[in-house]
Amino acid sequence: MDPHHRTPHHPLADHREHSAPEDSTRKDTTMSKGTISILGLGAMGSAIAARLRETGYTTTVWNRTPAKTEPHVKAGATAAATVSEAVQAGDITLAVLLDHASIHQNLEPVAAELKGKILVNLTTTTPNEARATAAWAAEHGITYLDGAIMAVPQMIGRPGSRLLYSGDENAYAIAKPALETLGTAEFEGTDAGIAELKDMALLTAMYQMFGGMLQAAAMMRTVGVPATQTAKDVIDWLSAVLPLSGDFAAVVESGRYDPAPGQDVNFTRPAVASLITASREQGISADLLEPTKKLLDELAATGRGTADWVSIIEQLTIR
Amino acid sequence: MDPHHRTPHHPLADHREHSAPEDSTRKDTTMSKGTISILGLGAMGSAIAARLRETGYTTTVWNRTPAKTEPHVKAGATAAATVSEAVQAGDITLAVLLDHASIHQNLEPVAAELKGKILVNLTTTTPNEARATAAWAAEHGITYLDGAIMAVPQMIGRPGSRLLYSGDENAYAIAKPALETLGTAEFEGTDAGIAELKDMALLTAMYQMFGGMLQAAAMMRTVGVPATQTAKDVIDWLSAVLPLSGDFAAVVESGRYDPAPGQDVNFTRPAVASLITASREQGISADLLEPTKKLLDELAATGRGTADWVSIIEQLTIR
Repeated sequence: MDPHHRTPHHPLADHREHSAPEDSTRKDTTMSKGTISILGLGAMGSAIAARLRETGYTTTVWNRTPAKTEPHVKAGATAAATVSEAVQAGDITLAVLLDHASIHQNLEPVAAELKGKILVNLTTTTPNEARATAAWAAEHGITYLDGAIMAVPQMIGRPGSRLLYSGDENAYAIAKPALETLGTAEFEGTDAGIAELKDMALLTAMYQMFGGMLQAAAMMRTVGVPATQTAKDVIDWLSAVLPLSGDFAAVVESGRYDPAPGQDVNFTRPAVASLITASREQGISADLLEPTKKLLDELAATGRGTADWVSIIEQLTIR
Repeated sequence: MDPHHRTPHHPLADHREHSAPEDSTRKDTTMSKGTISILGLGAMGSAIAARLRETGYTTTVWNRTPAKTEPHVKAGATAAATVSEAVQAGDITLAVLLDHASIHQNLEPVAAELKGKILVNLTTTTPNEARATAAWAAEHGITYLDGAIMAVPQMIGRPGSRLLYSGDENAYAIAKPALETLGTAEFEGTDAGIAELKDMALLTAMYQMFGGMLQAAAMMRTVGVPATQTAKDVIDWLSAVLPLSGDFAAVVESGRYDPAPGQDVNFTRPAVASLITASREQGISADLLEPTKKLLDELAATGRGTADWVSIIEQLTIR
């Protein structure tokens, strides 16, 4: 756990009273004390700018719509009129923009100003987009770190907030004290795309879990069980079985699927088919579960009925 | 937690030494002390028969292949040569057969012998099959209880084993002391199909969660991250977000989706599209996640972009 997780959250007003003089001092020695420029003041950018300010950093903020800088200026930040002005003010620039296109639209014109500085891109993009931005940064002598935020804005700087980083390891080491104020910081590797990839892999698992929860709630609602009751049952059940993921992954890692160390395809296939039937008999679509059945069908059709059901992972690799 | 969860597990051999004389006594007063007949000695039926014997019940066992009764007879059970003989011996008959068809194939000929007795069907069937068996039982004056086992055979009688029951409430009250030796017993309602439905709803959620975990592992494996490492990350992440199910279910129950109390369709749809792109860019199929995107597309296409994303549950109801 990071130190900031033990620090009670100070309301912005309290902070301003105490830190305004400190901020003035910092402005005089920008290069040594640390000024951070934040590009983009959407919900996430705003939360990040506020948190950095609250933890004693000098902040310069820029937003496409200037009005959004006002509350930040009132709280002690400096507003930059242009992206160029913003990146010149900061030792580190944090980009928290809409998407990959807005990163390039706003940063390409200021490549010269960013040269030799650290750019931390917290904008959500695909891994390949992160890699493309890293390549662009390298061409222009910009030290690039990509970040993926596994938190909602309200969680920034609070327990449970977790940010993944990848790209330039030196940039990570330098930016780390500031980044750790936002949430637990983890460096995933020098492939700039890996933080986004891990973020997306985990979100992929999350949406499938919640899809399953919602289908369960839909099924039980047909016999009058309220969704909140089903959610409780789902939470209990999934908490109990989630640790089996470790056993399944060990089977995957060993590559020894057949004979099955666990439940085989011949058992799992009709079991999943029954779930699909049961759902449909209640008038609930089984579309969310159908692809799992299809993967099991493929295994059965290619003589792998006695293989472990988790070998569906091998069917996911596009040939 | 049930009392049996606090009782240490006694190896079968220990039990035989102490309980053999007790069993003889029980055989003399079958009707008052409780004799349970177990039909079907697959892995689950065997575990159940062993557990009932270990906890002091007199057991009569029947299996299609008689050889499977041998270890049970050695351990103190009585083998029945026919289903008829088995159901006549027991106050309660537990059927742990292969499927719905085998239930009817084996039990229809002995309907007269079962009359006035309790039949607990622990065979995995769909909810409608359970309802059909309940209707058949009612026609023949058989008191019917359907059960769904949320455990693997190794868990029977141990912490974490959970069995759901529905159907005749009186039968449940009478059978409960015996059933509680198998695992936590929960009565879900008088609709005989509801225990199976809940079991299947929870298994539906489980397979989708594990499908998501396996897709995450497949994605991360493309950049050299071992599946066991991804499983650890998935376990941490899903444990952290699983409780949100309660919030989502509260939104579902309120029926107030628009404006979104949480994340809306307009935000979630491109986010899920990015996950699909990211997966494909790594050479990993996104088939397991595609149906979620399709549900979000349907909502967006019908003017519900500002609705909460959990309203995909309404798209699951077959019209």
